[in-house]
Amino acid sequence: MKRQKLRDLGVKIGKLPTGEKNCITDVGDVRVGHVTLKEEGGKVEAVRTGVTAILPHGGNLFRQKVPAASFVINGFGKTTGLVQLDELGQIESPIMLTNTFGVPAVTEGTLLHMLEKTPEIGDTTGTINIVVGECNDSYLNSIRQLPVKREHAIEAIEGASREAIEEGAVGAGTGMVCFGYKGGIGSSSRIVKDENEAFMVGCLVLSNFGKREDFRGWQYIIEEGKAEIPEPDYTTDGSIMMIIATDAPLSERQLKRVAKRTAMGLGRAGGHASHGSGDIAIAFSTAMTSEHVTEKVCESKSHLREDTALMNQLFQATAEVTEEAILNSLTKATTTDGRNGRVVEEMPYHIFKK
Amino acid sequence: MKRQKLRDLGVKIGKLPTGEKNCITDVGDVRVGHVTLKEEGGKVEAVRTGVTAILPHGGNLFRQKVPAASFVINGFGKTTGLVQLDELGQIESPIMLTNTFGVPAVTEGTLLHMLEKTPEIGDTTGTINIVVGECNDSYLNSIRQLPVKREHAIEAIEGASREAIEEGAVGAGTGMVCFGYKGGIGSSSRIVKDENEAFMVGCLVLSNFGKREDFRGWQYIIEEGKAEIPEPDYTTDGSIMMIIATDAPLSERQLKRVAKRTAMGLGRAGGHASHGSGDIAIAFSTAMTSEHVTEKVCESKSHLREDTALMNQLFQATAEVTEEAILNSLTKATTTDGRNGRVVEEMPYHIFKK
Amino acid sequence: MKRQKLRDLGVKIGKLPTGEKNCITDVGDVRVGHVTLKEEGGKVEAVRTGVTAILPHGGNLFRQKVPAASFVINGFGKTTGLVQLDELGQIESPIMLTNTFGVPAVTEGTLLHMLEKTPEIGDTTGTINIVVGECNDSYLNSIRQLPVKREHAIEAIEGASREAIEEGAVGAGTGMVCFGYKGGIGSSSRIVKDENEAFMVGCLVLSNFGKREDFRGWQYIIEEGKAEIPEPDYTTDGSIMMIIATDAPLSERQLKRVAKRTAMGLGRAGGHASHGSGDIAIAFSTAMTSEHVTEKVCESKSHLREDTALMNQLFQATAEVTEEAILNSLTKATTTDGRNGRVVEEMPYHIFKK
Amino acid sequence: MKRQKLRDLGVKIGKLPTGEKNCITDVGDVRVGHVTLKEEGGKVEAVRTGVTAILPHGGNLFRQKVPAASFVINGFGKTTGLVQLDELGQIESPIMLTNTFGVPAVTEGTLLHMLEKTPEIGDTTGTINIVVGECNDSYLNSIRQLPVKREHAIEAIEGASREAIEEGAVGAGTGMVCFGYKGGIGSSSRIVKDENEAFMVGCLVLSNFGKREDFRGWQYIIEEGKAEIPEPDYTTDGSIMMIIATDAPLSERQLKRVAKRTAMGLGRAGGHASHGSGDIAIAFSTAMTSEHVTEKVCESKSHLREDTALMNQLFQATAEVTEEAILNSLTKATTTDGRNGRVVEEMPYHIFKK
Repeated sequence: MKRQKLRDLGVKIGKLPTGEKNCITDVGDVRVGHVTLKEEGGKVEAVRTGVTAILPHGGNLFRQKVPAASFVINGFGKTTGLVQLDELGQIESPIMLTNTFGVPAVTEGTLLHMLEKTPEIGDTTGTINIVVGECNDSYLNSIRQLPVKREHAIEAIEGASREAIEEGAVGAGTGMVCFGYKGGIGSSSRIVKDENEAFMVGCLVLSNFGKREDFRGWQYIIEEGKAEIPEPDYTTDGSIMMIIATDAPLSERQLKRVAKRTAMGLGRAGGHASHGSGDIAIAFSTAMTSEHVTEKVCESKSHLREDTALMNQLFQATAEVTEEAILNSLTKATTTDGRNGRVVEEMPYHIFKK
Repeated sequence: MKRQKLRDLGVKIGKLPTGEKNCITDVGDVRVGHVTLKEEGGKVEAVRTGVTAILPHGGNLFRQKVPAASFVINGFGKTTGLVQLDELGQIESPIMLTNTFGVPAVTEGTLLHMLEKTPEIGDTTGTINIVVGECNDSYLNSIRQLPVKREHAIEAIEGASREAIEEGAVGAGTGMVCFGYKGGIGSSSRIVKDENEAFMVGCLVLSNFGKREDFRGWQYIIEEGKAEIPEPDYTTDGSIMMIIATDAPLSERQLKRVAKRTAMGLGRAGGHASHGSGDIAIAFSTAMTSEHVTEKVCESKSHLREDTALMNQLFQATAEVTEEAILNSLTKATTTDGRNGRVVEEMPYHIFKK
Repeated sequence: MKRQKLRDLGVKIGKLPTGEKNCITDVGDVRVGHVTLKEEGGKVEAVRTGVTAILPHGGNLFRQKVPAASFVINGFGKTTGLVQLDELGQIESPIMLTNTFGVPAVTEGTLLHMLEKTPEIGDTTGTINIVVGECNDSYLNSIRQLPVKREHAIEAIEGASREAIEEGAVGAGTGMVCFGYKGGIGSSSRIVKDENEAFMVGCLVLSNFGKREDFRGWQYIIEEGKAEIPEPDYTTDGSIMMIIATDAPLSERQLKRVAKRTAMGLGRAGGHASHGSGDIAIAFSTAMTSEHVTEKVCESKSHLREDTALMNQLFQATAEVTEEAILNSLTKATTTDGRNGRVVEEMPYHIFKK
Repeated sequence: MKRQKLRDLGVKIGKLPTGEKNCITDVGDVRVGHVTLKEEGGKVEAVRTGVTAILPHGGNLFRQKVPAASFVINGFGKTTGLVQLDELGQIESPIMLTNTFGVPAVTEGTLLHMLEKTPEIGDTTGTINIVVGECNDSYLNSIRQLPVKREHAIEAIEGASREAIEEGAVGAGTGMVCFGYKGGIGSSSRIVKDENEAFMVGCLVLSNFGKREDFRGWQYIIEEGKAEIPEPDYTTDGSIMMIIATDAPLSERQLKRVAKRTAMGLGRAGGHASHGSGDIAIAFSTAMTSEHVTEKVCESKSHLREDTALMNQLFQATAEVTEEAILNSLTKATTTDGRNGRVVEEMPYHIFKK
């Protein structure tokens, strides 16, 4: 049976309407690509991992940077690229997701991709900042074997498209575990509007955190199925990467405010950012770009006034899409086996409302 | 009819057991005092405000400082004292709460109290850092008249006790509004333990945020009462102060991690930290104190290992007590009138489970 | 003999040209006002303190806010207002300086001033964020007596002017000590320019830090006078407030970068931000204002491109004006007596180049 | 002629005594290893780069972590590993330095080294956080060719020793440029003490920043050589990595305070952290280690009291060693040619005092 998004199971999160695809690719020109690495493994070692690329737009991101910000809810994580992102408030590369030990290969692959497309980098102009996030999929995946190679990063970028994305056990999500069930990639979107303006907010998560007992999906239960589901014998502190995209014209400071609101969505799903968790949000806007090189001494940008109702709706939308993206990563993921003969089961549907 | 705590209405938040009083005063030697300022007002101007003092212990806090940290979820607030608290990781005064424009008077009153008790401050030794948080009660209270005086701060400190605290429309909470209902002071506590150790976590909130439509108490509804409750014609971005106390031996860095987890509890209650909101958490530990003056060159402290199950339970407990303290601030608060003939109604009980 | 600025003694700091007044009031419409409190004191108690007000412009700052940022080099300080300043990137009140225990009175006085000028605050619109910095003048001043009253804050604001400011032992600087000599208020400015644009950077410091042995003015010595100057028997960790103003069109993020560069100027003068020091920088731009209320949903702003040579010149200018303002606070200050019969001597000139 | 350290040229920075080697390896069990990559290149492309490894101790750093902190003065840099370092306040890998595009290879090489030495990582226990800093050596080095490979990282680690380190154009410093002269690796140390205790502070810098006109070494001139030295036609915003080691028993919060004081030393040398600069400090203590796995629920640590004179001496020492390490990176470096036939000259000695 094909796994479904939460809405297809009859459950709505929050009050705001979704975009057409209920997916981060509803936003501007955002593109997503996955490479899934799932070799038939022996009983002891198994490759269950991958790479996911999020492109804020389809052009050359180094030459046309987008405003961005990050927020670290819990920093037990190996995400790279945040130092410069926070200093300059810009993203100038695809945002890449993979497993913890895949970060160097994915960083280098993305670097090679950008160097090839942009001969001036490191020659006549400066360097480039690559942003790569990660979660630890070592329960199922043989992470010590470093199965992710730099070509996988390039492949994920080149395969990125504007379509509704695959969710669940795909791309960087192939081996992830969430609330004791199979997790991974999930996405959702919302429309915020007033009488004059309408903006889109989308979220893509890589979910890999929580115990079954933490899961707050029980609030959407009709049948009392919850009590029958025992905690599995594995528990992980795990991690979550949360990527927020919006076409609202926000500055990097405003985007940091948006990024912080993922904590509310994470909390509503049941997360409390456990000690060993890398819980990190990155938010960017597609409403404007900055050229790497220009003759201009000053640059004019139009930003949303923060005292508008739209700003609060953006915050609300961020909490909603984060919660729903996490739940989608669960309802879309399929039972997956992995190293040491381990199996992580998909979340059963009977705990959700019909 | 006497207003009740949420648990007395049959609703439990989370899974961890509460302390005896289900209150921040379950923790160590923590003391709380309120001064409620509620003069009979005319129709135009009315005093509906107050001061709440939280004392980490009953001794001289300047001479015996406690480890502490703060976390600013949203910084549209006038809390004072966080610069030094964050630099040194210590609190050396009572933590005071009041209305926005009452901060200077309460700071000065607390300063005078501490100067009187501690003649060496500003004479033979250095200065003292006073911590005062606030929310804006100007919907009901004539905030421009600065009704809070420095003697009210002293009175709140001197009246502090270890008893179960008054909640709702008292102290600093007298004029606050939360989710369109009367809010204010709320508190809750949790016990975390393993086979060898047990620690207490308590929370006191000053709640003053949110729209009715944001409220997520609907997840605890049996009767479908929600649809009958219209949004009032006032809405405020509001604010929330969240004070977390624990007797677990945590360092200032660990306490900052704890303080961050209030965001999950706030999100679960329905908050998304709106633009105009000062959403600020302060966490402290009562497990140890540092002397202001000592002969010692080095100081030895014992801290909880973060890879223990207890650390994650502390994070979980923080999310739980924050959510429950917010809900208690609503279920305990009583209908209150204020300036311009305004009335804010108490939250009706029929939306909660019996 | 009238005390002089460093340049009048023949010493230049750095390479960039100064503004006309070599003073923060060279920038845009910046205004500065002092109130000096220096009662004839007995031998035991003495009032040697004051208030200094820096107005980013002469209009109503609440209605016309300026972009701003702060940077805390060392946070052993009681500065208030930074939480909101950092969240919103704006200043909406005069920036006030006073002694440590004068902060509440000055905050309240400034609040009263703004409430009077702006009847909508706390009534039909929200609250206002007051920014007050401080240093501890308790070596000379009877700080425990709280001699600073709220009317002194109002007086400092109302007396602010665009003229070259008084420096040394005036206003908030009346009782301050720097490098074991009399310090206090100092100011300096620089012009940065390219073929098309020219911008002004100004600094005002309240200096109150350092030991004589830390002072690096020896690098400007011709005569070997240094060795003759013994360390006084008092030493204080002290503090420094550094206010940077520029008419360059900088965003709040860019202004935080500027604020950070004060650390280089402080280091060059000889500071190393000792433990008990509140070393805090606030930077603002006068190039644009934001209206508190507007019909607009979006707001357009023009900011300096950071890859221009002008940006680096602004950083360089910030280091230069900070160092020179500190030195001016010394060369302008006059010998001052204070409580307990103490005397702090002015810095002799023979250590500087002629 | 062999290039010398600044002290050998007769110039002393600051007042505190140096350690025996005047080098970061004076501290505890700190070890440093270099791999220099300097192939004979053609006129267009040339390899002028390398790797430097700083080991806080000679054991397994994952199993015996050291307290640490970072401070980003300017974040135009690609340093990786700071997110977790800041969350947990610990370093659990060697600190690696290389060129900007070498970061992924060095991260992966260091990871492989640690995986080999520590079979439990990513298997029965969690992941490991690798810290790698960088500067951009693309003026001399063909950075786009990614000449740094993961085996170079392993080699640098395995070759690390406790000896006085090589300085100048070696290891990661092979291709760096500072103040328009050849820069690279520099180091210095200081002893701080009172009647009972003595601690060591060491610094290692990778210098790659500044224009000739910014250089403040002129303060140590006797001969008026400065005016004769023209600015070269290349200027770079550059970067600097500053690694501070101490055997003082400091917590991660105290180490962040120490890390901040590098800004003063950087400023004194002439830096003002230009826009395109990654100016990043990392500080660690060798006084204690934390075991990765232990039975203990709590852990006791002894930390220096911050109100001691020793704490201020540590701050002063940090400013001094940073300035001197920068100057050593210049006085030790030798003229180096590179890609496109470029040559960067060594700093002449006649500008320094004899």
